[in-house]
Amino acid sequence: MGDRWATGRVEAFSDGVLAIAITLLVLEIHVPESEFDNLWHGIASQWPSYLAYATSFLTIGAFWLLHHGVFRRLQYADTRVMRINLLLLMAISFLPFPTRLMAEAIHDKQAERAAVITYGGNLLLISILYALLWEAAVRGPGLLEPDVTPEEIRAFRRIASPSAGFYVLATALALFAPRVAVFWLLGVAITIVLRARGDTLPGGTRRLREEA
Amino acid sequence: MGDRWATGRVEAFSDGVLAIAITLLVLEIHVPESEFDNLWHGIASQWPSYLAYATSFLTIGAFWLLHHGVFRRLQYADTRVMRINLLLLMAISFLPFPTRLMAEAIHDKQAERAAVITYGGNLLLISILYALLWEAAVRGPGLLEPDVTPEEIRAFRRIASPSAGFYVLATALALFAPRVAVFWLLGVAITIVLRARGDTLPGGTRRLREEA
Amino acid sequence: MGDRWATGRVEAFSDGVLAIAITLLVLEIHVPESEFDNLWHGIASQWPSYLAYATSFLTIGAFWLLHHGVFRRLQYADTRVMRINLLLLMAISFLPFPTRLMAEAIHDKQAERAAVITYGGNLLLISILYALLWEAAVRGPGLLEPDVTPEEIRAFRRIASPSAGFYVLATALALFAPRVAVFWLLGVAITIVLRARGDTLPGGTRRLREEA
Amino acid sequence: MGDRWATGRVEAFSDGVLAIAITLLVLEIHVPESEFDNLWHGIASQWPSYLAYATSFLTIGAFWLLHHGVFRRLQYADTRVMRINLLLLMAISFLPFPTRLMAEAIHDKQAERAAVITYGGNLLLISILYALLWEAAVRGPGLLEPDVTPEEIRAFRRIASPSAGFYVLATALALFAPRVAVFWLLGVAITIVLRARGDTLPGGTRRLREEA
Repeated sequence: MGDRWATGRVEAFSDGVLAIAITLLVLEIHVPESEFDNLWHGIASQWPSYLAYATSFLTIGAFWLLHHGVFRRLQYADTRVMRINLLLLMAISFLPFPTRLMAEAIHDKQAERAAVITYGGNLLLISILYALLWEAAVRGPGLLEPDVTPEEIRAFRRIASPSAGFYVLATALALFAPRVAVFWLLGVAITIVLRARGDTLPGGTRRLREEA
Repeated sequence: MGDRWATGRVEAFSDGVLAIAITLLVLEIHVPESEFDNLWHGIASQWPSYLAYATSFLTIGAFWLLHHGVFRRLQYADTRVMRINLLLLMAISFLPFPTRLMAEAIHDKQAERAAVITYGGNLLLISILYALLWEAAVRGPGLLEPDVTPEEIRAFRRIASPSAGFYVLATALALFAPRVAVFWLLGVAITIVLRARGDTLPGGTRRLREEA
Repeated sequence: MGDRWATGRVEAFSDGVLAIAITLLVLEIHVPESEFDNLWHGIASQWPSYLAYATSFLTIGAFWLLHHGVFRRLQYADTRVMRINLLLLMAISFLPFPTRLMAEAIHDKQAERAAVITYGGNLLLISILYALLWEAAVRGPGLLEPDVTPEEIRAFRRIASPSAGFYVLATALALFAPRVAVFWLLGVAITIVLRARGDTLPGGTRRLREEA
Repeated sequence: MGDRWATGRVEAFSDGVLAIAITLLVLEIHVPESEFDNLWHGIASQWPSYLAYATSFLTIGAFWLLHHGVFRRLQYADTRVMRINLLLLMAISFLPFPTRLMAEAIHDKQAERAAVITYGGNLLLISILYALLWEAAVRGPGLLEPDVTPEEIRAFRRIASPSAGFYVLATALALFAPRVAVFWLLGVAITIVLRARGDTLPGGTRRLREEA
């Protein structure tokens, strides 16, 4: 049996990183002062920024829900979980960069394809690292809470794998129709949020009681 | 009975987002170097930035107090509470954008109306999402702590609804007198802070003991 | 007996705000690309930024230590403590603005006086709000932990009051010698850090045990 | 016996500062709009920013793991630990500045040497402060958890000292080959992450149980 890590401070640090990444997104939005003569028009013309903001916010929010779901099912983390978690945080923290790139490039036919593909690639990387995190949690001996059922394990896999597929599709779609791909990515984020599962399946209350 | 979520990590993540949004506001304030010949004047002429800073800081602070009040009365969150909470955080995280817009536009008769209406609209959205959060908390079966009284439920509604009304008024006022509307919004924020209620009404101590 | 607030989430939110304010300070430092021909000189010529960074970092760190000291001695917060705490956080969050102003102005004889006085004024405001926070904690009936001794109460007052005096002195000094005043302010921050007291006076261990 | 500090809130504050510093790094990366005609090229030409981002992210992540390791072995902090911790946080919070400097300067033969040496110097300072933190923890009477073994104490020293050596080497290397030095620094960060030890050595479970 190798090294073990208590999960409390890992969760706190991860929450901090995700909360900051999600909140920094707004810094990228602004209306240039040259638009102040007709500010309503200026505000409206920033729609790619709002779209990029909503997509990235909901994506990070969705992965926060998933991350929360993984760690509430862990008794401990092992070294592999810690390393994958650090890479996952690195990929999520990086997202504000392609978010801004996409918001800036969407006015520009030439550039928008490259920007949306880069953005989709970042999301694909996040979803792959998330799937790896769950596999590491499942395979590490004695890491999972004893009451996690095989159905829960499969359910978490089902969430991770198709989202990776959705991101591959989005990246392919961006080759032909970058703007459509952005709305597709927003839809994927909303889907993950809507499908996120609580700490307790109907009937079980152990994990909730533990925290209280 | 559907999915349930322990509230501890949701509170931690929400606190993180609110703390960051409230602290990022200061990044929007600066005196241009061209004003350094007469810096006292340059500092004074940034008053719209200070006004916008104070209004947004106190508004986010007020909603933090309200958010805290809701979650301390919850045993668990359900999926609906989680989703509305994510939207509420998204609306609050967005506030630095119209805050800066308002601070920049207030020198400009043409632009200040649109900027203040946008700002008021963001605040209105926040207060509506907050009211929805409380309704979801009240209606979700078994979410509230058992000792929450009908008076407390009504008291929380009373806080949420008029603040939505105040924000509608402010947005209407901004059509005619945008600067007056900003001071009105500052007043609303101060009012919410002054009316915020503690974790325990006089007489009750259960929730406090639980945390200690 | 009025409203009461559990202190746990207030501490978490305050820690968040202080941690962010202290970390944002670095964003104000950069070497303009025109200095890249002689980068060692360019790095060295940013000394006012480093001085302002160190002073603000240590000041926020010092007030974090003091803030921690107050809240560990509280059983609950009341509404007055909550309001003063929110104002204190607002004053501390504002500090990155005069910090940058001071760093930019220090090269400019004309502007540096106004900038350093503004900076000192912000620190004075912080120390006054801190003193008010401690008075509110002491005077609120039943807020203090029962084992807080009159000596501790006086000791906390002794820390708060002279630091206010030091800031008045610094502001006066800035009228004649702004640069000397900055070093004085750095010295005050170091002094508060060096004089900060732990959670337990020699002999007592109750508060430490409680947390463990 | 002098003052003692409970470690909970120190960990929370430190986690906050590290989480913010690690997440702010992305703000320094952007593609200038003049590169939008050939955005793939523009994205690729930012490689020094990605390299600097990865190196700083993994370095802060590595020191977070080490910091976590120290504090989980402490019963209390004393005043010396608190002061060194504050200096360590200050050095880590400063890192985004030389990170950006290095990313900007790496295109420029003249400037890159100074930038990489400055960056390496900052990392050297961090590793020295970390070694001092561990020494203060070991030497403070009664600070360590009673079950920390002499082997663990030596293991932590072994991690701290060679990393200081690696940073001295990197700084020397930067005199002749600044770009090679950056990759070396990336390698050091990866090495520290890979060598980080869990809360429990094989066989022991006390500290983990305590948190649960």
